[in-house]
Amino acid sequence: MADFHTRRRIEFADTDMAGICHFARFFVFMESAEHEFLASLGMRVMVDEEAGWQIGWPRVAASCDYLAPARFGDVLDLRVRLLRRGRTSLTWEHEISRDGTLVARGTVTTVRCRIGPDGTAAPIPLPPSLFPEPDALVSSAPSPRES
Amino acid sequence: MADFHTRRRIEFADTDMAGICHFARFFVFMESAEHEFLASLGMRVMVDEEAGWQIGWPRVAASCDYLAPARFGDVLDLRVRLLRRGRTSLTWEHEISRDGTLVARGTVTTVRCRIGPDGTAAPIPLPPSLFPEPDALVSSAPSPRES
Amino acid sequence: MADFHTRRRIEFADTDMAGICHFARFFVFMESAEHEFLASLGMRVMVDEEAGWQIGWPRVAASCDYLAPARFGDVLDLRVRLLRRGRTSLTWEHEISRDGTLVARGTVTTVRCRIGPDGTAAPIPLPPSLFPEPDALVSSAPSPRES
Amino acid sequence: MADFHTRRRIEFADTDMAGICHFARFFVFMESAEHEFLASLGMRVMVDEEAGWQIGWPRVAASCDYLAPARFGDVLDLRVRLLRRGRTSLTWEHEISRDGTLVARGTVTTVRCRIGPDGTAAPIPLPPSLFPEPDALVSSAPSPRES
Repeated sequence: MADFHTRRRIEFADTDMAGICHFARFFVFMESAEHEFLASLGMRVMVDEEAGWQIGWPRVAASCDYLAPARFGDVLDLRVRLLRRGRTSLTWEHEISRDGTLVARGTVTTVRCRIGPDGTAAPIPLPPSLFPEPDALVSSAPSPRES
Repeated sequence: MADFHTRRRIEFADTDMAGICHFARFFVFMESAEHEFLASLGMRVMVDEEAGWQIGWPRVAASCDYLAPARFGDVLDLRVRLLRRGRTSLTWEHEISRDGTLVARGTVTTVRCRIGPDGTAAPIPLPPSLFPEPDALVSSAPSPRES
Repeated sequence: MADFHTRRRIEFADTDMAGICHFARFFVFMESAEHEFLASLGMRVMVDEEAGWQIGWPRVAASCDYLAPARFGDVLDLRVRLLRRGRTSLTWEHEISRDGTLVARGTVTTVRCRIGPDGTAAPIPLPPSLFPEPDALVSSAPSPRES
Repeated sequence: MADFHTRRRIEFADTDMAGICHFARFFVFMESAEHEFLASLGMRVMVDEEAGWQIGWPRVAASCDYLAPARFGDVLDLRVRLLRRGRTSLTWEHEISRDGTLVARGTVTTVRCRIGPDGTAAPIPLPPSLFPEPDALVSSAPSPRES
């Protein structure tokens, strides 16, 4: 099924002088939740190929709405849903909450890429075994043909 | 005029194992550029008030599209434009480029808030002197009445 | 007993372009392990007092030796031992390993402080209940009288 | 001459909920200062070789003493001195100050390494042209033969 749940606790280094979790950290939280999701499906997130090439998941778009502050020590519930499966891309929807209160909501689009030693990335098709049933998705996007 | 330019160099700690600048760092770059912009206008970004209260600019929304990889040592041009001035909020548009090539484009909405010692934030009106001419803005949004 | 064990997995954002965990992240790992240790003893790590004052644990010294690289996805074992209990300070010894291989070893000295709204910190005595038996410590430092 | 000076301003994301620059960020500041120093001497800090190999400077030891808090907006003076030149390593001494007040003092040992695509690092000799006069160093260590 195309959703996943994990948790993490806000650390001291996540906070800023306003006394709350720094907004950029939520993007790290979302990325890690996605990686856990992929790992839970048996996908290796970064695959080393020969000569310094890798297969990975660069992000092409990321957004987040901040609804409530999160503080040091808070345990966050991170829910990840697959919003759209393209030919080479996955778009994730994230909900981050604390004790049932929504703290942040985000969307991230990642593209499966072959990444060269210098960081240059070229999209490659998703493995057919990864989220094979598009109709099981949250989004009813009409059979996407492209990333 | 409601735009601003600054620069920064990508540091080693900004990079990740894909060999490029980690995507979450761009949100830090955008935040710093906004802060430099405000400082250039004589605004203090965080103002300490009595008893642990502060006036600051929490973010309520942030997004970024990634168009090209940025690498260690790259010098980035950060351009900030005010897209919308609300009653309590500012929405910024960011363009991040390297040698004229657009690397990332983002939008960030911040709200001027009074922040309590525990991180609780309450919106307060923008100072009238801050970006007083709404018609000078990039966006032609019809006289925004609310944040 | 004055030692503690926890675990964490290296995240993508922890890595750098050399393909390993960035060295500065180990200091965050050590800090979080200390905080978990204190929390496990019922100590609140940051205590909000009135008017924006806090009681916390600023670091006055930190060091780390790096013995082996740690990579994305590695699960690290973090062992924390109390090396020295001063009047106002605690010195922690950290061992970070992966599958029994020592990856890093560090020492951190923190001082219990009353922290003002502006970040100014003044040392205060440790609570008597916190690690009351100095002879149970790893270090045989002769009854420290000062921080 | 084996010393170098640079500056940086503390950013919002550098701060933590105690209202000051987070201690782990100082290690990033020191690393960047070293990199600027090397770049000023015409050294490329990371050199891409074929097949995903790189030449770089992993850290084997890092320490920092924190003498005074640093706050958002503070401009820090970073002074780097070469403390010791080994056969494959450089040991740097860092002094970080603000308006003449010493804020932190650190030492970092880096080893010039050939780094494989998987992050494995093997020491290699320093280029003879890099800091060739050991007697010009701060340290009077007797002609170090080894890293």
